[in-house]
Amino acid sequence: MIELVDNRYGKHRVRLMKVTRHAHGNDVHEWTVAILLRGDFTTAHTEGDNSKILATDTMKNTVYWVARQSKATTPEAYSCELIDYILERNPQVASAHVSIQAHLWKRLTVDGAPHPNTFMRGSNEVQTTSIERARDRAFDIRAGLSGLNLLKTANSAFSGFIRESLTSLPETEDRVFGTVVEAEWHYTDANIDYASTRTQTREILLRTFANHKSKSVQQTLYAMAEEVFNSVSAIDEIHITMPNKHCLLIDLARFGGDNPNEIFVPTDEPHGYIDAHLRRKA
Amino acid sequence: MIELVDNRYGKHRVRLMKVTRHAHGNDVHEWTVAILLRGDFTTAHTEGDNSKILATDTMKNTVYWVARQSKATTPEAYSCELIDYILERNPQVASAHVSIQAHLWKRLTVDGAPHPNTFMRGSNEVQTTSIERARDRAFDIRAGLSGLNLLKTANSAFSGFIRESLTSLPETEDRVFGTVVEAEWHYTDANIDYASTRTQTREILLRTFANHKSKSVQQTLYAMAEEVFNSVSAIDEIHITMPNKHCLLIDLARFGGDNPNEIFVPTDEPHGYIDAHLRRKA
Amino acid sequence: MIELVDNRYGKHRVRLMKVTRHAHGNDVHEWTVAILLRGDFTTAHTEGDNSKILATDTMKNTVYWVARQSKATTPEAYSCELIDYILERNPQVASAHVSIQAHLWKRLTVDGAPHPNTFMRGSNEVQTTSIERARDRAFDIRAGLSGLNLLKTANSAFSGFIRESLTSLPETEDRVFGTVVEAEWHYTDANIDYASTRTQTREILLRTFANHKSKSVQQTLYAMAEEVFNSVSAIDEIHITMPNKHCLLIDLARFGGDNPNEIFVPTDEPHGYIDAHLRRKA
Amino acid sequence: MIELVDNRYGKHRVRLMKVTRHAHGNDVHEWTVAILLRGDFTTAHTEGDNSKILATDTMKNTVYWVARQSKATTPEAYSCELIDYILERNPQVASAHVSIQAHLWKRLTVDGAPHPNTFMRGSNEVQTTSIERARDRAFDIRAGLSGLNLLKTANSAFSGFIRESLTSLPETEDRVFGTVVEAEWHYTDANIDYASTRTQTREILLRTFANHKSKSVQQTLYAMAEEVFNSVSAIDEIHITMPNKHCLLIDLARFGGDNPNEIFVPTDEPHGYIDAHLRRKA
Repeated sequence: MIELVDNRYGKHRVRLMKVTRHAHGNDVHEWTVAILLRGDFTTAHTEGDNSKILATDTMKNTVYWVARQSKATTPEAYSCELIDYILERNPQVASAHVSIQAHLWKRLTVDGAPHPNTFMRGSNEVQTTSIERARDRAFDIRAGLSGLNLLKTANSAFSGFIRESLTSLPETEDRVFGTVVEAEWHYTDANIDYASTRTQTREILLRTFANHKSKSVQQTLYAMAEEVFNSVSAIDEIHITMPNKHCLLIDLARFGGDNPNEIFVPTDEPHGYIDAHLRRKA
Repeated sequence: MIELVDNRYGKHRVRLMKVTRHAHGNDVHEWTVAILLRGDFTTAHTEGDNSKILATDTMKNTVYWVARQSKATTPEAYSCELIDYILERNPQVASAHVSIQAHLWKRLTVDGAPHPNTFMRGSNEVQTTSIERARDRAFDIRAGLSGLNLLKTANSAFSGFIRESLTSLPETEDRVFGTVVEAEWHYTDANIDYASTRTQTREILLRTFANHKSKSVQQTLYAMAEEVFNSVSAIDEIHITMPNKHCLLIDLARFGGDNPNEIFVPTDEPHGYIDAHLRRKA
Repeated sequence: MIELVDNRYGKHRVRLMKVTRHAHGNDVHEWTVAILLRGDFTTAHTEGDNSKILATDTMKNTVYWVARQSKATTPEAYSCELIDYILERNPQVASAHVSIQAHLWKRLTVDGAPHPNTFMRGSNEVQTTSIERARDRAFDIRAGLSGLNLLKTANSAFSGFIRESLTSLPETEDRVFGTVVEAEWHYTDANIDYASTRTQTREILLRTFANHKSKSVQQTLYAMAEEVFNSVSAIDEIHITMPNKHCLLIDLARFGGDNPNEIFVPTDEPHGYIDAHLRRKA
Repeated sequence: MIELVDNRYGKHRVRLMKVTRHAHGNDVHEWTVAILLRGDFTTAHTEGDNSKILATDTMKNTVYWVARQSKATTPEAYSCELIDYILERNPQVASAHVSIQAHLWKRLTVDGAPHPNTFMRGSNEVQTTSIERARDRAFDIRAGLSGLNLLKTANSAFSGFIRESLTSLPETEDRVFGTVVEAEWHYTDANIDYASTRTQTREILLRTFANHKSKSVQQTLYAMAEEVFNSVSAIDEIHITMPNKHCLLIDLARFGGDNPNEIFVPTDEPHGYIDAHLRRKA
């Protein structure tokens, strides 16, 4: 006998660009949306009964339709509207999950002034939103970011670690520390200003990374989370992943030269992987 | 106050190629290895105390060292050796997790005969292994595959689904069904023949996909899992993800032509996403 | 004053899947098509005059339309039909270029027999076609392949190279030689059997790579080209690119171990780059 | 008989990070360097004679060595030094080509002030340099950019194009115009200020794209080139590629809604491809 422990389905990578037209110019939002539903889908699996299946193609149309109706300017608010729309019309759905990657388009500055309708793609950093609601329950709201590629060229050490027979890494008081931050935090409250809270949280992560006297990736990661809890009361949990994207110091001594911490090889693989989940204690 | 709910660290994307040299020729294995450790690392986070930290660079060296000592020919057996090696030498580590992606190199056939030492890279399909052991506990062993790109050009229907105001997808009794299977299964027993069990499980997944009269992705996915449970007694759980990589029928009628299910556009985004976790019931 | 030295435009990455239905089962071709046109487009640039512009969206529709009408089973024959179709209907076009990447779908073997309608994606190797015709001229036909990932674990040396103050690479008589072949050859004749000539040429490249006692990538590349010229009279030119995807031998001596050419790290960057263009001499 | 029409070899994707340490903080440059050499390498191909072969591994070391010795702060100046270093020491080399991709690291602003040693990765835009020198000849210097992802939400039309039986694209006076600019220009003079000329040229490309009333990609591309020639006397040639990354207007009328140029699907494939090479006329 087989038990269907869990099952979900939905539509992924629904890309959406929304252009809002004002008297003075345009705003643009580019989002990649994913929907995942849980519900009464057992007979779809066991019997091929599609009578309770909302086609994923219909979900895609719903993304566009709700985007057109919506006045939301944040992915958080839009996600909540999209979830409500789906739950209301689909009694067979027990819970709906929407996640959004928001891509950065920066308004171009031309001759010293912001241009009304021309934009340049920003970095690969993505602002993320992950919201779920079970029927008759409250929204569970997470926001975050990924692809935030940072580099510290000072105030980063790594020493005092275990030395054993397979250890070849020298201790260092001054290394280059590169990482690609991925963070996701949980809000206790659905009635906050999503945009300003996101901006504030991101600024704290950046400032703490920059100012920290780092003894390890772990310590810097922890300090970043600690500062978020100190400053943003609406956040009760945060999950941060910070790979260590190594920059290797080149040995020029073998060629009769020196290299006083100046010439490095940035590498993608292998890389250290550091990951922690932190919670505010009552 | 902050609670460190969970934390892990390790080395990712350690690439390894092992060439085994026989009288008659060579064998080659290419693996990408990741290690993740849990343990007594709180002061590393809170105080920058690295005295219990095994450097991830040392983990990388350990991957190579154990590979050289090992006689294992499967990623499962090698992962177990690597985990044992780390747990024995590192009392501060509570549990070690090793995951491996094994890449396919096919021996070249030249003039009708297998060549002793020349290989061609196979498809993007990867054989995966994910093994964890907590100190004083047994191995938890999962095997799987990802990137298995399959296509059915017959025996795939999708009809009888909900029709509502945003539904534009026509019902069809004959669609092209493309997917990229990701599957991971759990073994009840560490004393099986890993290689032959993997081969058998993969064959069942392929055969069931090919022979199924599909009414939906969900139904085909369920049938694939069911056949695995029917045939491989060492497996008690399986998790399968099967995105629906849509092949869209081109409308040539608007140009005065026809298209009797012949000309399609394969697309990558958006795509349907179907996912289920199944368990054998006692 | 500005001179428009050259200009081209077209549609890239038009993806096409063609399913041919027989009594006994189906065949499937997946092609990614690109069209580039040269012609009388100066006023489009200088005045925004689109009256001679065939929209790239129309080119996309033309790809589908011609695919439906065509009986061609090779990308070479189909490309010629597509070029003819465009040149005939567009007097403003001076020359049309079509390039195609053909992706490999392998028919699945189930219970020992080829399955009538299920396919598995092959490797990343792509069969390429690049054909151009100027109005009132003959077709210029090139075929090739890219992404052919090969590995030799024996019969590859690299020694006798220049040793100077910045040389750190040891000489070796036995290295692992990995490469990703890209080759494109030119046909003297449009009336050959495209499919069998392609198969034959590819087999020669593979066999020569496998059997060569290599002193360098350059020598192996040259030998591969030489064998093509020796065996395929319809080819008068070939261009081959063979990066050296280094597999680095791990130093285990520093840890008190040995590594008799067994454990390597495959790397993607940096990589050697070797490239030659060869011609049959009269 | 075989003629070796052309052959080149070198090292690609040599990654380099240079940290320059000042009293007040650090500067950082990240470059990906490629070297390609032409010269007397025929016997390497035909006989496996490596006596004139500078190993590509040595080229890699040379990249690091010259970077350490160099005071250059632009990829152009560094490339010239690297080429000179190679040509001087290697009489068998007839010409050396160096190309560099410079990646953007932006200094972080923390609490309103530029941080002395923390940086954030910018967009995927890359500043390119491509320089060649044949022995006893002058440097041939090209600079450029790639991955410059731009979007205009107004002042872009496309109408008046050919309408034929396979045309389905409606004419529009108001479309969203997205592109990823790749440009490379040639300098007549090696004695210019590379950094400021690059900045100026890039600004002109951006400003012209933003301010242009576009009737087509071709017209905008031409206007961009024209403005470069008008303003930067050291440039005599420019090559620009501007794919048309289509943003498709969603049809909501079929669901009883409207879409007044507001909701779009950005797509990656297929895409228009527009390419021109322009020269200043005497």
